[in-house]
Amino acid sequence: MHHMPENMRECIEQCLSCYQVCLGTAMTHCLHAGGRHVEPAHFRLMMACAEICRTSAHFLLIGTPHHRHTCRECAEICDECAADCERLGDMQECVDTCRRCAESCRVMAA
Amino acid sequence: MHHMPENMRECIEQCLSCYQVCLGTAMTHCLHAGGRHVEPAHFRLMMACAEICRTSAHFLLIGTPHHRHTCRECAEICDECAADCERLGDMQECVDTCRRCAESCRVMAA
Amino acid sequence: MHHMPENMRECIEQCLSCYQVCLGTAMTHCLHAGGRHVEPAHFRLMMACAEICRTSAHFLLIGTPHHRHTCRECAEICDECAADCERLGDMQECVDTCRRCAESCRVMAA
Amino acid sequence: MHHMPENMRECIEQCLSCYQVCLGTAMTHCLHAGGRHVEPAHFRLMMACAEICRTSAHFLLIGTPHHRHTCRECAEICDECAADCERLGDMQECVDTCRRCAESCRVMAA
Repeated sequence: MHHMPENMRECIEQCLSCYQVCLGTAMTHCLHAGGRHVEPAHFRLMMACAEICRTSAHFLLIGTPHHRHTCRECAEICDECAADCERLGDMQECVDTCRRCAESCRVMAA
Repeated sequence: MHHMPENMRECIEQCLSCYQVCLGTAMTHCLHAGGRHVEPAHFRLMMACAEICRTSAHFLLIGTPHHRHTCRECAEICDECAADCERLGDMQECVDTCRRCAESCRVMAA
Repeated sequence: MHHMPENMRECIEQCLSCYQVCLGTAMTHCLHAGGRHVEPAHFRLMMACAEICRTSAHFLLIGTPHHRHTCRECAEICDECAADCERLGDMQECVDTCRRCAESCRVMAA
Repeated sequence: MHHMPENMRECIEQCLSCYQVCLGTAMTHCLHAGGRHVEPAHFRLMMACAEICRTSAHFLLIGTPHHRHTCRECAEICDECAADCERLGDMQECVDTCRRCAESCRVMAA
């Protein structure tokens, strides 16, 4: 892409990775596992995380200065999602991806 | 929908109306008018406004408590978009729709 | 919006209504009901229906002639979603909204 | 992600790359260049391409068999976008990314 700062490019990658892992895990692993994995609070958090990651990447690509606010919110939801996935267990890929995305978003929100 | 509070339902409607008007106006009126209407700062603001409205509606529909934060950000971007459309002129539908959406989002963000 | 044909405007409304009902019902009614309502095939169909409705509205708003293809696909998924919701029962709002959207999309796909 | 076939994983990557390049290029390069780059037909095609790529990736991640239809449509729009970007010139990254995405989507649509 045209002249994009490296940390911005990195953040887009992290957001789209986290979007993929959260959405993909919710719609396959969680639906198949059932039980605690489809409890409303957990499942909604995963879907909210996927959506804010998608939106944050979109804002960064649009080139709007408002990306700071979506990145800040993205970091908060990713942290919460990582903690909830860790609590449930057997979701380490999701925990790790959310944490990396949160870190990258905090840089862009600063 | 199932047992949704009236102000939440109203906010979803306002967000989806504002999404429609901002995206539809940018991709028809602004592209056809050209000139100031496709200046990067204005055009990006309209696209950012369309996207945050879509996301705020999505968060309200998912039923996540994080809708407060997306609604707060939505209100800010809508206010900014309304002011910029008023400055350009000949975009009164966009001005009015953004203001109604901002008002509704502020209620949900409180 | 600027000079949009009435049947196009109507189709956008139906798509966004169906998006709202499918996403809102899946994330509240289905998650709370559990059991058959969160079986992967049913739940994925509802989420796919919400997403294609959102995309079809987006294509109509963008003003691209490719809306014919997204509307044709939207009609097919809506029909399938209506049938599956009818099979499960207790989802009449979803059945009716999907059928109205499918009808409207078939007009735009012709 | 959990047990996803390699060609599906590859297609998600190509779709999200093409989404990034088309959206990012339209909202920076095209808006800054102006002239032919913001002519309605070209600009709408780029935005439609970005959106169908985003949707196709979403369908693949949801795990719905309807991904075949969104991938087929995605391949068509990517081919058209590649040809239009080639015609304008100075958009080789977009041309190449659209062609790779089209090829990958055709595999998933078969």
